[in-house]
Amino acid sequence: MTSIAVDAMSGENDPAAAVSASLRMAAQHPDIHFFLCGKEAAIKAEFTTPPPDNITIENADEVVEMHEPPKKAMRRRGTSMRRAMDLVATKEAQTVVSAGNTGALLGIGLLVLKAIEGIHRPAIASFVPNANLSDGCCLLDLGANVECTADMLRQFALLGAVLTMTVRGITKPRVGLLNVGEEHFKGGEQLQQVAAMLKTVPDIDFIGNVEGFDLYLGNCDVIVCDGFTGNVALKASEGLARMISGIIKKEFQRDWLSSLCGAAAYPVLARLRTGLDSRRYNGACFLGLNGLVVKSHGNADAVAFHAALNYAARAAQHDLVAQTKTILQSGNV
Amino acid sequence: MTSIAVDAMSGENDPAAAVSASLRMAAQHPDIHFFLCGKEAAIKAEFTTPPPDNITIENADEVVEMHEPPKKAMRRRGTSMRRAMDLVATKEAQTVVSAGNTGALLGIGLLVLKAIEGIHRPAIASFVPNANLSDGCCLLDLGANVECTADMLRQFALLGAVLTMTVRGITKPRVGLLNVGEEHFKGGEQLQQVAAMLKTVPDIDFIGNVEGFDLYLGNCDVIVCDGFTGNVALKASEGLARMISGIIKKEFQRDWLSSLCGAAAYPVLARLRTGLDSRRYNGACFLGLNGLVVKSHGNADAVAFHAALNYAARAAQHDLVAQTKTILQSGNV
Repeated sequence: MTSIAVDAMSGENDPAAAVSASLRMAAQHPDIHFFLCGKEAAIKAEFTTPPPDNITIENADEVVEMHEPPKKAMRRRGTSMRRAMDLVATKEAQTVVSAGNTGALLGIGLLVLKAIEGIHRPAIASFVPNANLSDGCCLLDLGANVECTADMLRQFALLGAVLTMTVRGITKPRVGLLNVGEEHFKGGEQLQQVAAMLKTVPDIDFIGNVEGFDLYLGNCDVIVCDGFTGNVALKASEGLARMISGIIKKEFQRDWLSSLCGAAAYPVLARLRTGLDSRRYNGACFLGLNGLVVKSHGNADAVAFHAALNYAARAAQHDLVAQTKTILQSGNV
Repeated sequence: MTSIAVDAMSGENDPAAAVSASLRMAAQHPDIHFFLCGKEAAIKAEFTTPPPDNITIENADEVVEMHEPPKKAMRRRGTSMRRAMDLVATKEAQTVVSAGNTGALLGIGLLVLKAIEGIHRPAIASFVPNANLSDGCCLLDLGANVECTADMLRQFALLGAVLTMTVRGITKPRVGLLNVGEEHFKGGEQLQQVAAMLKTVPDIDFIGNVEGFDLYLGNCDVIVCDGFTGNVALKASEGLARMISGIIKKEFQRDWLSSLCGAAAYPVLARLRTGLDSRRYNGACFLGLNGLVVKSHGNADAVAFHAALNYAARAAQHDLVAQTKTILQSGNV
């Protein structure tokens, strides 16, 4: 049975968002168990009826603050984040989902679960939408590592490849190295080293340097970069998508003719706005840890938190961590 | 009289794009003179009628190749790019516009025009669209400098501030430092040094760390980052905008009902697609050189090249380079 440890307290809209999303998931997936970690009274207050059988509350009195230094958070054993992580360490749950402080979640993940043997540092990975507005390219790192060595980038490429193999069922993922131009000499020596190493990996299709627009062209399954660049690229995309959604709304309210057109076009535009809604793509995976950790946006509402829970369930059901170890040990990736 | 030196040969669609765009600009702006630099016969072949009085052809037999190493291009004196740059050096023209190899254009600019005294390195700057689909935030560097020191980033912030003061008439520009989080401790020591320096500049409103989505929020006039990050962020945005334009088109062709809605909504959607068209925002400025250089997209067509010419004319008419020197010397920026 799949179990998910939900850190129900650390996000900006928690426990309301976490509890509401978990209730919806629990009803949709009676075969999955949910541990809601956090202040028992606060969590209970979110229920109007008794929790279903597949939800258990795990009391934890403390909460990691959004801007708390990770080192401080790592020393506190009584937090909801720590309680959720401990449930994965003891194998009572297969995955933890938290909308809390990213640095603290990573630090506690490393402390409690440890990195997979041989992995220098975990990376954060997420799928960006493709032209069908479903899971497209896997982008990593998204901010766990602001500065990276060549070998870290090589490992991120492999971890991203394993994620797409496991969760999306792609046999030989096309992997691109994010750069400022396609030419092999671009971007400095470090990226050339990474490229040279990735060329020799048998089970990936290394397509060389790619550029920012390749994130949305559908020609890559994995794009690898340092955490600074990835974080900025993802957030810039989110900002632009939000701006465009706003423009669509405004354009159709401009005058009576536009409003009329808007009403006629409503079903189509609704589909587009839903497709562009970043809440649908919420949920980033920490790769390289000895356990599955899924990070939700800090300001996730119930819709967004539900997407993160769904993503975690999918990764857990594919046994991502075990698969990662097996594939890495094969030496072909 | 304003004169623009057009490198008419170096882009993917040149000389056709450069000549067609220059003809349209020359008709719209009889007070601006255009020097079309390149192979005389090839340029002449693009004219169906004799050129107007405000267009002169400047023969140059060689062309810088798109993937030519900049150092090689810098040694060749007979290229259209070099000819155009020489016209700016001799003050016959106020600005050069080229759709050619960015590295070569930068190298030749440095060689011929030199950097402004005290400026370590030039940066490439462009405006991203805002929610009104007009010039929004100025982002720099966009790829001239893949690696940057703290003092280079400080100078880029000042150069970007002067650009927005001069071309957009903003008195005290709001300047943000691109980072992975708002907290002052994010992103490593170098960015903290830059922030400390920018805090003390009187004539800018330094708002501290900003994130990727701030590019499109309208809360900044200038966002500064290294050339790797800026290049990726801009190209990712372009890729996403193009993908969304494609989705809008496809959504309205999905079935007969959608098509009907699409027809009704046509004027509104046409406005949005035009607004999202990256050709409208074509034209990036090299800042920090002793002369004005505007870079057009390599694959610019006549519409995009026209936008770059327009941008160059605006910057030249505001005497951007002289203004930059004056403002930098004032010591308040």
